[in-house]
Amino acid sequence: MAKDEKNEKSKGLLIVYTGNGKGKTTAALGMTIRAVGYDWKVCVIQFIKGSWKYGEMDGIKKLEPNVEFHVMGEGFVGIIDDDKPIEEHRQAARKAYDLALEKMKSGRYRLIIMDELSVAASLGLVFPDEFKKLVAQKPADLHLVITGRRAPDWLIEEADLVTEMTEIKHPYQKGILAQKGVDF
Amino acid sequence: MAKDEKNEKSKGLLIVYTGNGKGKTTAALGMTIRAVGYDWKVCVIQFIKGSWKYGEMDGIKKLEPNVEFHVMGEGFVGIIDDDKPIEEHRQAARKAYDLALEKMKSGRYRLIIMDELSVAASLGLVFPDEFKKLVAQKPADLHLVITGRRAPDWLIEEADLVTEMTEIKHPYQKGILAQKGVDF
Repeated sequence: MAKDEKNEKSKGLLIVYTGNGKGKTTAALGMTIRAVGYDWKVCVIQFIKGSWKYGEMDGIKKLEPNVEFHVMGEGFVGIIDDDKPIEEHRQAARKAYDLALEKMKSGRYRLIIMDELSVAASLGLVFPDEFKKLVAQKPADLHLVITGRRAPDWLIEEADLVTEMTEIKHPYQKGILAQKGVDF
Repeated sequence: MAKDEKNEKSKGLLIVYTGNGKGKTTAALGMTIRAVGYDWKVCVIQFIKGSWKYGEMDGIKKLEPNVEFHVMGEGFVGIIDDDKPIEEHRQAARKAYDLALEKMKSGRYRLIIMDELSVAASLGLVFPDEFKKLVAQKPADLHLVITGRRAPDWLIEEADLVTEMTEIKHPYQKGILAQKGVDF
């Protein structure tokens, strides 16, 4: 496998984890471990509040100060119980969006993870043209990871690396309740 | 989502990440972050040497002492350049196997990751009946994660949670060389 160690600031990739299976956010989390191993600065922005589990949030704190973690957005619209009007969700997503853009432009990070951005977009919280504008502003040397099911076709077209996580089997199918350390 | 916080030593799951896409080992790595967030002890055993990248190995050390990491096995047989006779690979895989069994039986861990075990098995380094015997001895409260492409059918049948990572797009298709922090 070719290496670019001599070329530290080489091309940053646009990476998409999508599909209905488990492991999308978890794989993005795993990438933060690798990045921290290289002493890179990492920024994680959560577009949907509640999509991260307590263990993830406590665990990632052990990777500070290299990894910066921002809980933005509100709970899933229409997915988890939620009485909030759609406008509140849009405003929260807007704040996440503005922060993502600012962090991306800052040049301080080698890896930025926009967690559940594809879901936020599919729920109409981030509009397609905004989403495209955000991705278009990725600096050339930044690795940008976008997670969430239902990644739009244009994003898959743009991306350098796309993995679809397909659920082959889920414990719920066996009647097993959500398990600590796996589901939350 | 149901929680089992009151039931700390509840069922441990058998989790399989397979498929030809990127993100299998990375998702397993991400699970270690979550587990460390819960202050669990984690053991990672690498069945194929060289499948982990420098960044991953340096990064996971930041999660010590909760996470214990063992590089076992030799390089990929017939996948990477390799002059070693198959018997050397089998012996190395045997050591990894014995360690995995010992660690599993010790009861010290809540999460054990057997990285690339499915690949080691598909290359004939671990025989099917040994592989089955290993999985059969999983303690009820242990979360066991097995990664690697070509997971055998019986394992998928046995598992509680199976995600197939499918490569939709890889940077090599665009003529981009392997990137630090993503590929190694």
